[in-house]
Amino acid sequence: MKEVLLADNPGIDNIIEYLTANSGKMIRPRLVYITASMSEHDPSVVRDIAVAIELIHLASLIHDDIIDHAMIRRGKPSINSIWGNHASILAGDYLFASAFNLINSHGMQAIMENVTATIRTMCSGEISQMSLAGDIQITEEKYLEKTYGKTACLFASSCKVGALASSMPGESVYALEQYGLCLGYAYQILDDLLDFMADSKTLGKPAGNDLLEGNITLPVIHALKNKEYGDRLRSLLKNQHFNEQKIALIIELLINSQSIDYSLCLSRRFIAAGIKHLDSLEPGPAVKELKYMAGYLLVNYYRQIRHNEKQIQDVVQI
Amino acid sequence: MKEVLLADNPGIDNIIEYLTANSGKMIRPRLVYITASMSEHDPSVVRDIAVAIELIHLASLIHDDIIDHAMIRRGKPSINSIWGNHASILAGDYLFASAFNLINSHGMQAIMENVTATIRTMCSGEISQMSLAGDIQITEEKYLEKTYGKTACLFASSCKVGALASSMPGESVYALEQYGLCLGYAYQILDDLLDFMADSKTLGKPAGNDLLEGNITLPVIHALKNKEYGDRLRSLLKNQHFNEQKIALIIELLINSQSIDYSLCLSRRFIAAGIKHLDSLEPGPAVKELKYMAGYLLVNYYRQIRHNEKQIQDVVQI
Repeated sequence: MKEVLLADNPGIDNIIEYLTANSGKMIRPRLVYITASMSEHDPSVVRDIAVAIELIHLASLIHDDIIDHAMIRRGKPSINSIWGNHASILAGDYLFASAFNLINSHGMQAIMENVTATIRTMCSGEISQMSLAGDIQITEEKYLEKTYGKTACLFASSCKVGALASSMPGESVYALEQYGLCLGYAYQILDDLLDFMADSKTLGKPAGNDLLEGNITLPVIHALKNKEYGDRLRSLLKNQHFNEQKIALIIELLINSQSIDYSLCLSRRFIAAGIKHLDSLEPGPAVKELKYMAGYLLVNYYRQIRHNEKQIQDVVQI
Repeated sequence: MKEVLLADNPGIDNIIEYLTANSGKMIRPRLVYITASMSEHDPSVVRDIAVAIELIHLASLIHDDIIDHAMIRRGKPSINSIWGNHASILAGDYLFASAFNLINSHGMQAIMENVTATIRTMCSGEISQMSLAGDIQITEEKYLEKTYGKTACLFASSCKVGALASSMPGESVYALEQYGLCLGYAYQILDDLLDFMADSKTLGKPAGNDLLEGNITLPVIHALKNKEYGDRLRSLLKNQHFNEQKIALIIELLINSQSIDYSLCLSRRFIAAGIKHLDSLEPGPAVKELKYMAGYLLVNYYRQIRHNEKQIQDVVQI
């Protein structure tokens, strides 16, 4: 990744060194690798497509962090907190252009079409969601629409472009894309749950941070509809001045109203649906790995809310 | 352009309606059209490439306006002043992705390569220039380097991709790219001059705005080297508190030190060099039009500093 990005230009190269030294879980490029591995493919093409997908993800994170004034990313100071908004906007643009440059170098038109369309969807989706910030009238349907643009469509794209980089039949490409879509929904729902359930040290930000930013997520939407707890939650959310104590009360309410469980259950359903899409594919190590990745989302969730490994094995049946 | 961009999504579509209703001079897409017209070409391809180039230009303007906190663009409120920074970052990303999507739809790999490389150059150039903000030690060489990334490379790219979209021999593509490069330098030098010489009503911003933003341009660099005026200018620039009176003094100094003339002369040399590159091409209406566009940069300059048309004809010999 670093090799692709370095520009022999100290301004951008410092940012790149920092970015590449603090890589994340690399879920999206791993999806590219695994899906491509299921059929004949050129490893150097697949590597570049995987890098491009991670660059697009990184670019969107950098731009999101400017938008959210986020000071921390992956447990380290964010790009904008070190280099300022100015350089961060440009660094994001630079990563986007580098990703497209890389994909184009292999002349794979269908992949470029999918990736550019995905970014259009991500951006237009996020813009249209802006008006929903802090809106407690938001429905579960709207939440899922938001989740599609924010996360699921790039997960789907990661699987699809990996598949397209190999010589796979159309139906298999479609099945993998659907698997990625489900995985993306599950990932985001669990991530939203962690915002309430993980401790702030693990999160690297205060619990309930989404509420502070007006991001109304699934457990809150669910609890607001609850006859017994809805009104109490509405009054807690009313004047928006969230302190630690108030957040703790909200979290307790989300647990008692079964809204955490409901959300967990929905993410499990997405994981199951994603795995189901793999049924049409020939069994083998790649399918096994994709199933493992789906299940791992839950393992990761329970780890972060500090269940011990024994408890996790009991709860997660992959 | 509108047709390509609309997403059937009110969030982004409102921004697009606004953007497309306030189009600028369209110099870059015109360069695409004219250069492509010199040889056999598919008009629908050329149209899409021209649109893509304008989209990239627009995206970079939107992101620049966020960076500069600019409230006015093309005489109207800027996107960030109406929709905020959040939507503006995303709208810029959306335009970039749309441009790449459009270029890719024709599968023209060489064009995509050139355009993505150009954006990389623009971004990395701008980042490395950030450290020069307000630095009165900046040399003319550094200024030209900055001008390359800021303007000249996209002008060069506009000509090159137009040429590549037609069936032109390599030497002609190269000549047109060099013409575009020269035109871009001349354009930016004149634009920097207008910042001092046009009245604020024409500019839509206060005269001397570049100085307020720490953008040290060619006339200032030249005057700082002047034995008679350099020290006086240095002291005027020292404590950065620019009011109207101080700016007026600086402008007078730039005129008296011949720094305005020097810069004008350099832009004329770039225009002449650009026109010279056209010599190797077959004469015809396209070459004539390109020569006209080069000369028109000067006409436009003199119009904006309120010479009357008779005076302009005397000064500008195209």
